[in-house]
This record gives sequence, C-alpha cells and structure tokens, in this order.
Amino acid sequence: MAKIPVGVLAATGAVGQRFVQLLANHPWFEVVAVTGSDRTVGQPYGEGVNWVIAGDAPAGIANLIVQPTEPNLDVPVVFSALPSKEAWEMEPHFAQAGYAVVTNASAYRMTADVPLLIPEVNPAHTALIPYQQARRGWPGYIVASPNCSTTSIILPMKVFQDAFGLEAAVITTLQAISGAGYPGVPSMAIIDNVIPHIGGEDEKLEVEPKKLLGQFVAGDIVMADIRLSAQANRVPVMDGHLASVSVKLGRPVAVPEAIAALQAWQPPAGVRDLPSSPANALIYRPEEDRPQPRLDRDSENGLAWTVGKVRTCGVLDLRYMAITHNTLRGAASGSILNAELLVQQGFIKA
Amino acid sequence: MAKIPVGVLAATGAVGQRFVQLLANHPWFEVVAVTGSDRTVGQPYGEGVNWVIAGDAPAGIANLIVQPTEPNLDVPVVFSALPSKEAWEMEPHFAQAGYAVVTNASAYRMTADVPLLIPEVNPAHTALIPYQQARRGWPGYIVASPNCSTTSIILPMKVFQDAFGLEAAVITTLQAISGAGYPGVPSMAIIDNVIPHIGGEDEKLEVEPKKLLGQFVAGDIVMADIRLSAQANRVPVMDGHLASVSVKLGRPVAVPEAIAALQAWQPPAGVRDLPSSPANALIYRPEEDRPQPRLDRDSENGLAWTVGKVRTCGVLDLRYMAITHNTLRGAASGSILNAELLVQQGFIKA
Amino acid sequence: MAKIPVGVLAATGAVGQRFVQLLANHPWFEVVAVTGSDRTVGQPYGEGVNWVIAGDAPAGIANLIVQPTEPNLDVPVVFSALPSKEAWEMEPHFAQAGYAVVTNASAYRMTADVPLLIPEVNPAHTALIPYQQARRGWPGYIVASPNCSTTSIILPMKVFQDAFGLEAAVITTLQAISGAGYPGVPSMAIIDNVIPHIGGEDEKLEVEPKKLLGQFVAGDIVMADIRLSAQANRVPVMDGHLASVSVKLGRPVAVPEAIAALQAWQPPAGVRDLPSSPANALIYRPEEDRPQPRLDRDSENGLAWTVGKVRTCGVLDLRYMAITHNTLRGAASGSILNAELLVQQGFIKA
Amino acid sequence: MAKIPVGVLAATGAVGQRFVQLLANHPWFEVVAVTGSDRTVGQPYGEGVNWVIAGDAPAGIANLIVQPTEPNLDVPVVFSALPSKEAWEMEPHFAQAGYAVVTNASAYRMTADVPLLIPEVNPAHTALIPYQQARRGWPGYIVASPNCSTTSIILPMKVFQDAFGLEAAVITTLQAISGAGYPGVPSMAIIDNVIPHIGGEDEKLEVEPKKLLGQFVAGDIVMADIRLSAQANRVPVMDGHLASVSVKLGRPVAVPEAIAALQAWQPPAGVRDLPSSPANALIYRPEEDRPQPRLDRDSENGLAWTVGKVRTCGVLDLRYMAITHNTLRGAASGSILNAELLVQQGFIKA
Repeated sequence: MAKIPVGVLAATGAVGQRFVQLLANHPWFEVVAVTGSDRTVGQPYGEGVNWVIAGDAPAGIANLIVQPTEPNLDVPVVFSALPSKEAWEMEPHFAQAGYAVVTNASAYRMTADVPLLIPEVNPAHTALIPYQQARRGWPGYIVASPNCSTTSIILPMKVFQDAFGLEAAVITTLQAISGAGYPGVPSMAIIDNVIPHIGGEDEKLEVEPKKLLGQFVAGDIVMADIRLSAQANRVPVMDGHLASVSVKLGRPVAVPEAIAALQAWQPPAGVRDLPSSPANALIYRPEEDRPQPRLDRDSENGLAWTVGKVRTCGVLDLRYMAITHNTLRGAASGSILNAELLVQQGFIKA
Repeated sequence: MAKIPVGVLAATGAVGQRFVQLLANHPWFEVVAVTGSDRTVGQPYGEGVNWVIAGDAPAGIANLIVQPTEPNLDVPVVFSALPSKEAWEMEPHFAQAGYAVVTNASAYRMTADVPLLIPEVNPAHTALIPYQQARRGWPGYIVASPNCSTTSIILPMKVFQDAFGLEAAVITTLQAISGAGYPGVPSMAIIDNVIPHIGGEDEKLEVEPKKLLGQFVAGDIVMADIRLSAQANRVPVMDGHLASVSVKLGRPVAVPEAIAALQAWQPPAGVRDLPSSPANALIYRPEEDRPQPRLDRDSENGLAWTVGKVRTCGVLDLRYMAITHNTLRGAASGSILNAELLVQQGFIKA
Repeated sequence: MAKIPVGVLAATGAVGQRFVQLLANHPWFEVVAVTGSDRTVGQPYGEGVNWVIAGDAPAGIANLIVQPTEPNLDVPVVFSALPSKEAWEMEPHFAQAGYAVVTNASAYRMTADVPLLIPEVNPAHTALIPYQQARRGWPGYIVASPNCSTTSIILPMKVFQDAFGLEAAVITTLQAISGAGYPGVPSMAIIDNVIPHIGGEDEKLEVEPKKLLGQFVAGDIVMADIRLSAQANRVPVMDGHLASVSVKLGRPVAVPEAIAALQAWQPPAGVRDLPSSPANALIYRPEEDRPQPRLDRDSENGLAWTVGKVRTCGVLDLRYMAITHNTLRGAASGSILNAELLVQQGFIKA
Repeated sequence: MAKIPVGVLAATGAVGQRFVQLLANHPWFEVVAVTGSDRTVGQPYGEGVNWVIAGDAPAGIANLIVQPTEPNLDVPVVFSALPSKEAWEMEPHFAQAGYAVVTNASAYRMTADVPLLIPEVNPAHTALIPYQQARRGWPGYIVASPNCSTTSIILPMKVFQDAFGLEAAVITTLQAISGAGYPGVPSMAIIDNVIPHIGGEDEKLEVEPKKLLGQFVAGDIVMADIRLSAQANRVPVMDGHLASVSVKLGRPVAVPEAIAALQAWQPPAGVRDLPSSPANALIYRPEEDRPQPRLDRDSENGLAWTVGKVRTCGVLDLRYMAITHNTLRGAASGSILNAELLVQQGFIKA
C-alpha cells in the first residue's frame, strides 16, 4: 500500500526527535509535516532542531519546513509530542478538525472516553473511539499512551491479573534521566545521586494502571479494582525505567507458577502482525541479577518488557522487577505501535 | 583519661581504612596495632596500604608495622574489618584470648548470644555479653554491627515500632558502590546502569531487623514478629544507601502523627553523651525531593539517619524513604560508636 | 578585631552559595547583606535560595532579607558572584560608590587597570588599585579572580616561569560540571560522555595567564610573553578542574630539577599569614596515577594546587598534570583569599 | 563463496566476546572454534562465558564447546583476543602451525617483521608477511592491530602527513573504561573522577604511530620521523576514546586547508570494497562541540573516525579532536577488517 502521510507535533523536542527517527523508515507511515515552537517555525527541520540523539536527523525529514502547531497539516494522522499544557489546548482542535491524534502527552490520558492504549495490554479499549467522537462531535479522535513509568510495570501486571487476579501492588521505580526530556535533569543534581521525586509520577503510577487493566463496558472503561502505592526515583541512568513491584494476587501463587504464566503469555490476536511488534514482547530472565537497564533496555528494538527476580514476597504474595525502554516502548515506539493497531482495526484508513 | 589502645583487624581493606581514618583523632581510643594480609605483613602501614579514601593515611598510623591477624596484639579491644570467612575463623580466637571484638563483619551477626548492636536502637542488647562469655568460656566477647543496608532502614522502623507497633515492611534499596568495598563493582557493570542484585543482601534485610528490634529476655533476644520483604539494588552512587520502605503498623496512623513521632524521637539515655554521637541522629526532611544520597549522606559526620517522603501507602499503611552513609554510620563509624557504648557501660575498661 | 561587614552579590546562585557557606564562620569577615534576583528579593535568604550544596544554608545568613543588587548596602566590601553581563553593568557602580568589589565574574578580568589576582602568584598586582581609582575617579575599586580553569594551571606555570623561564604551553583541560553553575550542564548531555567545548574557556585560558604572569611596571601590567594553546573539555566529574600541560621552558630542564622547583616553592611573603591560606598550597604527588579530581580536589580545604605526572615532553620540554577545586580555589575561596590579602595590604580597612 | 571457518582465541573475555558478536553474521567468516581459560574449557561457550555485552551470546556460537588455546583448531584463521603474556607465548605457535593469526594483542605490535595494520592507513604493510614467514620459517603469520588509543588518533595524522608533512604531535587522550576490559576499572576508582594514568598507554601512543605512518622498504618498515608526546587519561565514559591533538606540520597550514584535506580523504584502493568497510570512514564535524563519545562513537557501526575542533594551535600549527569506538574500530572490528584485507590481498585463501 502507499504510505500514510503523518505529521509530528512538537517534532523538535526530545520525544519528537524520537518520533522522527523511528518513523524515518516506517513501512506504513511517512512523515510529511513537522511542527515546532515559534523559534523554529519556518526553518528546515534539520537546522531548527537541536538534535540530541546519536547520529543526525534523517535526511528526508531534515528538509521539511517546521510549521506552527495548528490543525491545517495535510495529513490524516498526527503523532503528538506536545508538552502537557499545549497538548491540553491543541489536541482537541486537531481531533475536531478530523485528525487521528496519537499522543504521548499526559493531558487526556485519564479522560474517560479517551483510550489509554497499549496493544499488548488492552487493544479492545479502542472501542471507546466512536463514543468519544459521538459525545464530542469530533470527526477525529485522541488516543493516548500511558506514562513511561506506568508502561514499564504494566505487562507483567496484566499477565498476573489474567492468570491469578490482582488486588494490590507496591511499586518503587528507578527511572532514567531521558524520561525528563532535554535539558531535563541538571547533571549537578543527579551525578553520584538519586532523586526520590519526579513531579506527578507517583500519582500517574497509582491511577493509570487501573484504566489500562480496566474493562470496556458499554461505552466506558470500568477501572480495575487494584490498590496501588508508588514511589518514583530518578537514578543516573540514560535510558530504561526499572521497577521493583510487590503484588497481592487473587490467590497464593508459587514462584514457578508465576514464571510459567509470564512465559506462556502471548500477545492478543493480530498484535503480532503489526510491523513494529516485537517477536518477543515479554522476556523472562532467570538470572539473579537481571533485568538491568543497560543490558535489557534495547531488547527487541527497545519494545520488550524484561522481567526477572520473580520471588515470594514476605509481605504480599510475589515480588519481581521489570524494565522497559522509556523513550522507545514508553514513549515514541509505543505510540507508533498504537497507530499501527489503529490502522489494523480500521480507525486509520490507509 | 588515658586513651585505650586498640587494634584494627584487616586495616588495609576499604572498611579497615575507614576505621584507621576515623580513629586517628579519637578522644578515647588510639590505634596502636594494625593487621593485614600476608602481602602487607611486615611493611609500614602507610606503604602496605593501597589507600583509596581521599587524602592520605594518618601520619601516626602510617608508621605502624602491619601484623598478621593473630590474637597476640597488645591491646584490649580490636575493631574487625575482616572478610566474612576470616571473621568466622578468627574472631572467636580473639574473644577466647580476652579481646573485646567490635566487628563490622557479618559472620556472627545472627548468632544468638552475640549482640547485634546500634546504640540508638537497642543499647540494652549488650546484656547478652555475660551470657555469651559464660556459655563459651570466653574472657573476651564479640559485638557485631548490622549490615549497612539494614542500618539504613532501622531507626525509623524502631520509632514506628515503639509508637504504633510494626507488623510488616516492604523494602526496596538503592545502594552505593562503596558498600562492595574495593575493587568491588566493576565500572563497566554499573556506569549508566542499575544492578538488581547484591549477594546475600535481601536475606540480611529480611532477618537482621527482627533481631535489632527484638527484646532481651532472660539471656536471649526474642526476635520481633515482623514480616519483611526486601529487594536490594546497586546504583551508580559513591556513598549512601537509600531505601524506600512501606510499612504496616499496629494501627492506622495519619501522616502528621508519623512525622511527629520521628521528630519527637530522642536517643536512649546516655547515648547522646558518647563522643561520636551525633547531635541529631534522626533528621526528618519535609522537602518533596529529599533525602538524596549526595546531599544527605554526610549529615552529622555521616552518622545521621535522614528520613523523608513520609506518605500514606495505598497498600500498607505508610511509606517513606531513609538514608544513611553506608561506610560511616553503616560500617566503621557505627562500630566505633558501639565501642564507645561498651566503654560507657563498663564492658571495655578504660 | 571586630569583623568586617561584607555583602555577597548574587548570593542565591551556585557561586554565591559557596561565598555564603565559606564566609559563615570567617575570622575577619561577616556577611550582613545578600543580594539576589527579582524573584528572591524581599524573602529571607534561606527561603529564596534553592540551596544546591550539601547541608543547609548557614543559620545566621538564612535570615537575611535578600536585597536588590544596588550599591546601597551598608558594608565596605562586596563579593560578587554576578553573571558576567550584570557584573559588567553593576560592578563599576559599586566601585564608584566606594565599595571594594572582590569579584569572581569575568567582566573586568582583562581590563588593564583591574588586578587579576591570586595571592600566591601575583600579590604585587594590587599596586594597580590606586591607578584604577585615579584614572576612573572611583573611591572604591574592582579586583578580579581568574577563570577557574586558568586558576587550575597557573601556579606550576608560575613556578616554572620563575625557575626556568616559560615560553609556551599546550593545555588540555578536563573540567568538572560544577564549573557551569546550576542548572548548568544537562545530565543527558554529559553522563557517559565528554563535551569538548566550554564557551569562551579556550580564549580565557589563552589570555589570562599572560596577565597573571605579567609584571607591574609603572601603573600597568606588562603581559608575559608566552605562547598558549588551549582545549577545554567538560567531563562527568562533580568538582575539580584537571589539566594536562606541556610547556616549553627557557632552557632544557631535567625532570628532577623541575620537581625540585615545585617542592621548593614558597608563597610570597605574608601570604601564609592570611587566615584562609593553606599550609601547603602546592602539593607535588609522585604517584604515577595522581592527581585525580576525587582524591585531590579537597586537599587543604580545596585551596591547594596538586601537581603530578611531571615528565619529559617528547615535543616541548616538560609535561605534567595539575588540579584545583574549581568552586573553591577556582572561585569563592580564591576571591576570599584575595580579600584577605587586600586587608593585609591595607586596601580594605578593618 | 563458502564462508571461511575461523577460530577466536580467548573468546570468553571482553574483546573475545566482541569478536564473537561481530563475526556471528559475517559474510566471509564463520566462527567454528572458540578457546578459553581452563575454567571454561569443555563447557558450551554460552554457559562458560560471562557475557558482558548487551543481549546474549549468538545462538550458533553459544553451542560451541570451549577448547584450550592450542594450535589444533580446524580452521585456517584465528582472531586473537589473548592477554599480552599468553599472546607472547602462543601466537608464534599458531603461526608456526600454519595459521593466519589476526591479533588484537599488544605482544608483537612493534616486532619489526609483523605488520601493524589498519586498512585505511597502511594496507601495503602486509608486504612484510612473506619476509616474516621466510625469516622465521613459518607457514602461517601474525598481523597485529594497534592499541585502541593509537587507533583513535591515527587517521587524521595520516591525512595531515600525506597532505602537509607531519613533524610532531602533542596528544592528550580521554579514554573509555571499556578499554580496560572486564572487570577492569573499579567503579570506586572512576565514578566522579579521572585517572591520569593507563599502564603502558603513553608509551604505545608515542611509538605505534611511527610504525603505522612508516614506509615499507625492502622487507622492513622505516619508522616515520615524528616527535610524539602523550598523556592518557581514563574518564567515566563507557565506550569511545577521544583525543586532543596538537600537531606541527611540514609547513604552515590554514584551518580551511586542513579541513579540506580531511574532507577530501578517500580510502586506499580496494579498502572500500571490504564487507565491513564503512561508507564514510573519516567524518569531519563542523560543530563547535563535537566530536563527543556518546554521540559519535557508533557512527558507521563504530568503524568511523570522527574529527572536529580543527583550529590553529597557538604553539604548534594545528589542534583538533578525534574519536573512535575503542572496542569496535579500536579492537575487534579493526581486526576483522584486517582479516578482510588479507582475504582481498590473497594472504587468506577462501
């Protein structure tokens, strides 16, 4: 098929650059429009952008002229890397103007009729889209990705929920600096240090999983009934959000049974056929010292969850550690996979 | 009073160096003997040691000739920085030969009649000493310090135990590389990375607090009845073990009440009079981003616990973060404070 | 004597905080006024400041109300931590209003009649002060400290200049992130990385030494005739500017002779009597792997130069490495020592 | 053509692992034998190896049984990652037994009749091979790669030598920790620090370039007449050796002329046809803050030299900075490229 033309909103920021890099050779999508701040509007993207990723801006996209973030781009789909406040203001304008808005921003994640989507976890939640359109009178729509720290913990939670029931989780994260964007965390604040605070992150970790693990029922998501407690920490690691999780399950579960559930997991029907879909989205590692950010974050092009240290918890039922790459699975790649699912399900027309 | 002559066992290792540095100008103790490995025996300490701490070996001690680790040192007290296996073998020989062995090694921490001691937490546990001596026929004795990660979490647990009762704790640590000694963790393993495994650490974290928070009853320690779950992580931080802790208390406790208990804490009688005792051993920080290793580890000469992020836990009752300096409070300084307590209590004679 | 009241300009920034910390218990000076940005003016210093140094703002100074940076402070001396542009504008107003301006800013360093001062290097350059006052009609004056990277290399250069003559130096620095202030260098830019560029630093390294090593002659400084080539690099180190220097001397010099010159160095008359003056301002280390930032930056309270690796250069004559602590010797402590020299020489009246 | 079977000596070490990883899908070579230490001999490679690179050992090679390092492997070519001492002993045995020994070890680099080879720099030096074989009576031969720090600086030196003549170079390196292998540099030694010493590195930097830039004349290499001065530093960077170089040229050269020479460079005939040969082996970057290790080390699969900061040197003629990936271009990939050249030149028969 001919590629679907797409735009990237806030393409000059750290997440926007990832979108541009990952979409450069995408089999279904082609970036034909990029937007940016006033400072960069009117310049070729390759000149306006302060490229902070290794390598250079992709040649084809580097020549695109940066446009203002207004809903007059000649594309049916936009990937949004907008900061939260601008996303709050502009994404509805795009949806109203008929665009499919596939966003990484936090603004509408918890809005009742906006799907908070991970193809491996809750592909059926896209059923919200027609309800969103009907209620708001939008020809377009918004589909959101969760926070990158939520993403890092969610797939093993889903597996355990399905297999055993899930009642509670105590979460402590060790998050990479790239999660804060650029310039983000000052080096003087984080070298030889840990910062036990990431603004708004604990709250996101304590609510987004309930939506992701909830059920679509009659035009709404019924939130999962899970008690959550989270403490987010910033550590001096470039990429990869690692999390230590203790869970209370629906019944006592032996460690081998829990490991078997992880190993038996298969993605929902159709998800494996998406072009960015990893061959193995859920990797269980038996070594006593895995997962580790530097060794595991890039597995499956940064799209895998790696889980290890599955053990009996002396207080709840089980504890384990999980990691994903925060700017790939947890941000740009995750949103691209969402868009692929929307194509597959017919919400984006090729 | 005249200073009490002391020896340092394994004085050339990383912890041994800390003992040497901290005892160099101690008001009560004077290092007159140092022991080391075969490689260093017979050399002046200043030449045999590969000094890895900032500055140089203290002048007076640098001239001492390194001796083998045998119980023929002309001192009544030895500080032991022996590796676990050598401690297991040699510390009883020293106790049998009449020495007070104040050890930082793990070998005898959980031995029933060996006090596992932190002056601020359980100074009365030294009552085990005469029982240890009687049962074993030793004129000397062994007193141990807990693991540095146990130390980092224990004082706020003690405060909550005393104030509200303590039933369970889910612990996730972020520990410094200096905890592994020298050479310890390879740089290729930890730069830009987290290692979710420290050999034996989870087990120590799940058992040592029960002894520290236990009761001396009729010649024994009755272990505290607390369920514990621990996950130790190594992070690229030089010094300071940070821990995220969720606790189940004896009754529901509001956050201000918990903070008030921390702020009202006073050290046991006499402890404040010890020469190394910090003016403020338990620091509560109200900022949303504290404690941090680099900013808080050196408080009170590295002898304070700093606690913050006290919040309601969505699963258990409360969660908070705590930090101590692992090679000071959690190792050498802690043992020195133990020795000071032993002097105060008459177990070491001036 | 009664302490001399002083003010700190831009006391809320990173360098300003160092001034405040170091002056908190100074035997000659007492901080009675602090200035800051519009955001902080009117607040108690302890509340307005975002304290980025370990510990807390000193109690006495924390209560001072932050004032605007205007020459109406009730002190005879101000320490300036102003950013370059504001220094350019405001420091002359202070000098004109009669203040002794002891500045760490770069604005007037190379101005002909402003002493660029390091007590150990060129204490006689204060002879410029009356000329500065006469030419400009100022009752006060400005005295500047050099750039922190210049400071790191200058004392061994001075020693070699005096002993053998100095014709040229090829300089490559490895500089700490704290040199960029706060927030300064983004962590994403420097973790696991080196940045071979610090704006304006090469130029400063290629000109400031000529003034510092120049001669006061008849109301002017005759710049030293030395060819200089510099490449400044930022490395992921918190504190301490390390430099690799190759020098061409006035004559061939054997390595032992060069080392002897370093070891024989004594500070100029009177400098050792200044209260902040280190006992040993120039430390030669014979080890093959010294100096190192973490091990040597804090020597002598961060006021020493540590030099090592003195070797024959295969291209010029000698090469060696030198380090100083960039925010202490290279910034706040250096300026305080300058002020002490001005008191000793009578330019500041007690 | 059928793939050439090859062996990897010391395949379980850090450099050996890189060989294994890079040869896993090589178009010309197939790893059919791996050797290792006594500890690992007899085990499947995938079990014996402590894999320290991201990902896992390649599936096909993981099943090979580790053999002792003896010249009885059923292959015509061995890649040697042996430690220097074992290389000194064993590599001649392999050459004597008829193997082409393509080594990354330092043992024979400066041996007169052993080619020290980089295809882009001195492909004609393989002419030494028949002389080596004749003098020693070996059916096989040894070809060596230079030290990884030498590699990082050599291509721009070659360009300037060819274009302008090269008389002297003052070199200061900032080298990655992976250059020390695993476990290598202790984290406590290098985090927040620089170590201005790498054993033997200065000496290698001051002699290997003379051989690489020398001329093959009548069975010998006539060393280039260049004065060299080197200071190697270890910095807390994972991969990528960065170097600051000041050069004295055969004549004064303006900066644009020097940049033009770098940009005009083309690889020697045939080299571009080698399967691992990068499309662009010499990348000139005009930005004022490049090259940087993290951004530039992976260019062209880690096989490119990136050069920048080309400027007039105030003491010699020009200064610039260069970087290569030390374990790829500077070690395993470089040796593989050497082997490809040997195939192309007929020294290895397909």
